[in-house]
Amino acid sequence: MDKYSVIGKSVPRVDAVVKVTGDAKYTADLVLPGMLYGKILRSPYPHAKILNIDASKAKKLPGVRAVIAGQDTPGKKFGRYQDDQLVFVDQLALAIDKVRYIGDEVAAVAAIDEDTAQEALDLIEVEYEELPAVFDPEEAMKPGAPRLHDHAENNVGLVLLRHFGDVEKGFAESDRIFEDRFVTQGVTHLALEPHAALANFDAAGKLTVWSSNQNPFPDRAQLARALDMPEGRIRVIKPHVGGGFGGKVEPLSHDVCAALLAMKTGRPVMIVLTREEVFTATRQRHPMIVNLKTGVRMDGTVMAKECKIIADTGAYYGVGPNVLATHGTILTLLYRTPNVKYEGILVFTNKQVCGAQRGYGNPQIRFADEQQMDMIAEALAMDPEELRIRNAVQSGDITPIRSRIVSCGYTECLQKAMAKTGCVQKRGNLPANQGIGIAGTGMSSGSKTYNKPFSSGALVELQEDGSVSLFSGGSDIGQGLNTIMAQITAELLGIGLEEIKITVADTEFTPWDQGTSSSRATMFAGNAAKLAAADARRQLFEAAAEILEASPEDLDARERKIFVKGSPGKAIPFVDAVRAYRAKRKQPLLGRGYYDPDVERPSPDGEGNISPSYSFGCDVAEVQVDTETGQVKVSKITAAHDCGFALNPMAVEGQIEGALHMGIGYALTEEFFREEGLTLNPTFLNHRMLTALDMPEIESLIVEPVDPNGPFGAKEIGEGTLVPTAAAIANAVYDAIGVRIKELPLTPERVLTALEKKGGRE
Amino acid sequence: MDKYSVIGKSVPRVDAVVKVTGDAKYTADLVLPGMLYGKILRSPYPHAKILNIDASKAKKLPGVRAVIAGQDTPGKKFGRYQDDQLVFVDQLALAIDKVRYIGDEVAAVAAIDEDTAQEALDLIEVEYEELPAVFDPEEAMKPGAPRLHDHAENNVGLVLLRHFGDVEKGFAESDRIFEDRFVTQGVTHLALEPHAALANFDAAGKLTVWSSNQNPFPDRAQLARALDMPEGRIRVIKPHVGGGFGGKVEPLSHDVCAALLAMKTGRPVMIVLTREEVFTATRQRHPMIVNLKTGVRMDGTVMAKECKIIADTGAYYGVGPNVLATHGTILTLLYRTPNVKYEGILVFTNKQVCGAQRGYGNPQIRFADEQQMDMIAEALAMDPEELRIRNAVQSGDITPIRSRIVSCGYTECLQKAMAKTGCVQKRGNLPANQGIGIAGTGMSSGSKTYNKPFSSGALVELQEDGSVSLFSGGSDIGQGLNTIMAQITAELLGIGLEEIKITVADTEFTPWDQGTSSSRATMFAGNAAKLAAADARRQLFEAAAEILEASPEDLDARERKIFVKGSPGKAIPFVDAVRAYRAKRKQPLLGRGYYDPDVERPSPDGEGNISPSYSFGCDVAEVQVDTETGQVKVSKITAAHDCGFALNPMAVEGQIEGALHMGIGYALTEEFFREEGLTLNPTFLNHRMLTALDMPEIESLIVEPVDPNGPFGAKEIGEGTLVPTAAAIANAVYDAIGVRIKELPLTPERVLTALEKKGGRE
Repeated sequence: MDKYSVIGKSVPRVDAVVKVTGDAKYTADLVLPGMLYGKILRSPYPHAKILNIDASKAKKLPGVRAVIAGQDTPGKKFGRYQDDQLVFVDQLALAIDKVRYIGDEVAAVAAIDEDTAQEALDLIEVEYEELPAVFDPEEAMKPGAPRLHDHAENNVGLVLLRHFGDVEKGFAESDRIFEDRFVTQGVTHLALEPHAALANFDAAGKLTVWSSNQNPFPDRAQLARALDMPEGRIRVIKPHVGGGFGGKVEPLSHDVCAALLAMKTGRPVMIVLTREEVFTATRQRHPMIVNLKTGVRMDGTVMAKECKIIADTGAYYGVGPNVLATHGTILTLLYRTPNVKYEGILVFTNKQVCGAQRGYGNPQIRFADEQQMDMIAEALAMDPEELRIRNAVQSGDITPIRSRIVSCGYTECLQKAMAKTGCVQKRGNLPANQGIGIAGTGMSSGSKTYNKPFSSGALVELQEDGSVSLFSGGSDIGQGLNTIMAQITAELLGIGLEEIKITVADTEFTPWDQGTSSSRATMFAGNAAKLAAADARRQLFEAAAEILEASPEDLDARERKIFVKGSPGKAIPFVDAVRAYRAKRKQPLLGRGYYDPDVERPSPDGEGNISPSYSFGCDVAEVQVDTETGQVKVSKITAAHDCGFALNPMAVEGQIEGALHMGIGYALTEEFFREEGLTLNPTFLNHRMLTALDMPEIESLIVEPVDPNGPFGAKEIGEGTLVPTAAAIANAVYDAIGVRIKELPLTPERVLTALEKKGGRE
Repeated sequence: MDKYSVIGKSVPRVDAVVKVTGDAKYTADLVLPGMLYGKILRSPYPHAKILNIDASKAKKLPGVRAVIAGQDTPGKKFGRYQDDQLVFVDQLALAIDKVRYIGDEVAAVAAIDEDTAQEALDLIEVEYEELPAVFDPEEAMKPGAPRLHDHAENNVGLVLLRHFGDVEKGFAESDRIFEDRFVTQGVTHLALEPHAALANFDAAGKLTVWSSNQNPFPDRAQLARALDMPEGRIRVIKPHVGGGFGGKVEPLSHDVCAALLAMKTGRPVMIVLTREEVFTATRQRHPMIVNLKTGVRMDGTVMAKECKIIADTGAYYGVGPNVLATHGTILTLLYRTPNVKYEGILVFTNKQVCGAQRGYGNPQIRFADEQQMDMIAEALAMDPEELRIRNAVQSGDITPIRSRIVSCGYTECLQKAMAKTGCVQKRGNLPANQGIGIAGTGMSSGSKTYNKPFSSGALVELQEDGSVSLFSGGSDIGQGLNTIMAQITAELLGIGLEEIKITVADTEFTPWDQGTSSSRATMFAGNAAKLAAADARRQLFEAAAEILEASPEDLDARERKIFVKGSPGKAIPFVDAVRAYRAKRKQPLLGRGYYDPDVERPSPDGEGNISPSYSFGCDVAEVQVDTETGQVKVSKITAAHDCGFALNPMAVEGQIEGALHMGIGYALTEEFFREEGLTLNPTFLNHRMLTALDMPEIESLIVEPVDPNGPFGAKEIGEGTLVPTAAAIANAVYDAIGVRIKELPLTPERVLTALEKKGGRE
């Protein structure tokens, strides 16, 4: 008999059927009686003063119920993660006085249908005074550049300086020093579901917001801030969400405007962003310039790293300060590095705001570090894999910034990938224009980076009819968290997955949960579900033990029965034990779980173990480069990832495959084209999202060093898997055609330019 | 300082604002995307065979999505209360082969709007073979009468015979024996909200039903039975309900048809009954013929009672067997009666089905018994009050059928009403045609009468933000249960009513609760809330005690603070204690309550204490009779009621006033007029519901003998208050004009006929 009945199995999602049949309701599918539709008027200028807004014509349009502009809002700034660093909270529901990018929110309309709302937008007359704008972060930092914010001289929003050990000494003790500049682009999240919010404000003063979001509880706090009302009067509900990838970690203007319009009209108001709005006026990944300097001994030992990053945050802070703050962890997570110095500069430009995106700063740094590792290996005449293994962190390590690596399968991932792909043997020996490359990744399973409780709660109630209700504040945003939690609960209670009823992500019904971000869902919400189910199991076994005349610790639960271990005949049905508990204890049979691990928010110096656990992995990319067209074709990626115990191997593979889709797009095709701040390609097609036909063969290798903190030993798999892909491909391209491309994406133009330069140099 | 902060106060309903502003959503207000509207085709004949149903034209009507008849249903019978007495389960969603009353359900349609659905009904061609029908229960029992059901010879569905003590001996020991026949009519519930159901069936096979019902959990069981699907796949949600009064204790055909049509179409289906359907095809109060025989000693001591009741159940059993079963309790609850014999006969007639209605058989019996008590008092030359007090049950009594009377304020109610009204002095001494009359009442606070768990569960969760979530399966159907539960919770936690978030009556979210019926809500759901809040308070105090360096038992909670009793300065805010608990215990702070009192379902002999507690009271009615027109005008009713501790005196008064509205209508005006089974008055106006202008002056006297089992000593107030009104008015009419009218309602015709007879006799 298998050790487990439900976990560790590749089971389909609990919501698979309702999703594929269209029965699952996403925010935009919802309907409330008397519902109005909202639309947002956005700035057509990258930088301008608002001199006047005349909404009189719009208000007169039949079917229009309300028009609001900045002065009709509480004027309160909001912004996730900066609850105790108010200087970074700079987002307004609607602009007051000034707009700072094309898409900045200026006014909002509620009308009886979307067409009328759109027509009303066209009738709002806004008088602007155009201001000079700046789009490049390095240009923005120059004296005399157009200035976005009064508080930010030279458009620098933040300079973060951190130093662990002594890099000067480290470099002095190094035999070789390498220094390179890498550049990465902004990309969108490509979630299939557009952002949407439906708000209802009742006569008793209660606001309910259904929103396509990742974090109902933190969102509630931000809505309370933006609306200047107590949190207790707001309820946030997350319906089914069709992908977040970080793009829905924070409430945006449309969430607040839907609420304001509902309050003004007394009617429910739905705002669904258009695809163009999602592309141009929500968030994107931070474009970064990464200057990386590494000192090594001749044997390959890394002695010191110094990294200077210029991160383009766009027109507002967004979550930029937090992205910079996690770089200390990222830089020191993968390779033992005794001396590290890091400077992060956040720069404002007149472009859409940057935010959280799968990897949260990690892909940018890995793109730099993993290429430089290959360059160092080549210079030292070592295999890149050997260099990595020599420096790889190991289980039990404590990094310079105090990350506690309780389990680490990085070396094992590298070895498995090497064995599977033969990359060491193939490198340099493949046919012309074919190459192979490797790159590593490390990722936290949740990052404690702000002042809200970094915890997850769950309740498991065993009902009279034998069904089991799981209450969790955790947010399934398409990644399959509900299935994971249901598996854990079913396993511990010895029942089937189909018998779990899941109630999630509703601030009124479910216990606090920080939500889905920083790859915390399985670790945190999963652990909370496990604790709650175990608590319920303990109580159930006590009741069953009395009936079976056995000791509770001698019991086990499987197949809807509770039985004495070793005597499966001595058993009672699950439902009978539940009823016996109720009848005797006179209490609902309810288990409680609360996962609140002993981790720290980084100190002002940047030290602190931000996560209970870290995951690791690597990609090996095989490419073929067409030297005529410059086209890079990825033929195969072998991805070895240490996700701890795989609670649902099919879900792990799904995460790996989805991450590679995003990683290859990031490496090769995806980017924003803008002209004077205007986005020219706000569509899936022109943003060049990969289609199924563009995808290479994928081989997933799941490495499972069971983690002591993870639920049944599981840890992060959602984000880290995307992180190494661009570097692995870039390293493979170097192997194929001998050119090192340090700027993303690796477009045909860049490949041809690099080939020409190489040819020219030869 | 008052002993209590929140309970014992007349606070407005927690949902008052959303209800008066129209923001509260009732079932018929709900909208789901793609929703269809259903209508039901009903039999135009009181009794007929269905020979053929041709729905082909209806199906072709544009906009029609489905038509179903009996053969399209699982054909499973359902019926509340008879889960283990299947012989009494005889309800079908749609008739098969035969219809038995005008209104019996024959087919159902789902279409894109109500008009189309109605049009489709008209296109369904049903071929009937008319059968002879019978409408009077005594006629129905005669040999050769038309027979409704094969299993019921002479249309007798059930004969219930019960005997406690020895009535023959009791009568033999009596000095005087009185025997009378009383007749009561059927009336409708007059709930302002019509019955409605919205069903959604998703591709994963899960059925969700929003229904205007009183008992989501028992309803789920009945839906499972009717639909032949596992209970675990059904979720029942009770939105706001605009009055039940017993008319919504069981799912009806429209609930099942909405589900079947949703399953057939794959779209949500809403069925809202028309007012006419509510009047003619839901339930009504059982019309009864009560033959009552009482033996007394000359000093007034009641020695024996024998009662034979013929109850007209209409075309099907409904809850009839259960109504008869409670009569043993009712007959013995008010007056010490050592010897009791009871025969209940349930008779089928070709009329709409009878069901539960406020009082559940009690008003019929009290109408008889309380008039006969007055007749006995007159014969013995005693005051009716004196006779009642001499025989009144007292706290601590155990009745012949084993009801345990743990608290009884009956004598106190009589005394208070006497003192307040001077009825003893006024009787016989009022001006011509004016009269005063008294009648008593006793009612259980919940009756355990079927095999489902007779219990209520509640959870109280203290959230991170200091708000408190109360989860209860209890059903507020307009009576104010949510307010009562919130008051109890707020009191124990020392917070304000407005800080409680209430989640109720959803079989997926909330703990099991048998629902709102038999006046159990405050006793059961209230006690569950109290237990849950006390459990949360205990945990909270433990955490607070550590911070305050005090013993938990020395703490108290008020005004959002937890403080050391006697040292109010030594205090911490409520929210700080909640957070401290979470941070230290690493658990959600959650209290559990489950109220499952030690009561019994009646034995086959009818013995058993069905309720944890009983309430008592009396009405004193003052009337003026117009002897020209026969019109009885009630000028004042003084209602003294023992509801235990009044958790919310305003709510108690509301229940008394509402009950009197129903009781006076029952006494004087309300009835069904039918011709050959066709209801002629299916409207509020013609059913002669009293308007506000028809209501007399009401004086409520709340008598509060704190009950040891009730939450803070509270007990039933919702039903018992309606029970004595008709008898009190009849007794007052006798005092006014000297005629004894033993048939309800006391219409002008009956008054004039009685006056004529009296004149004729003189």
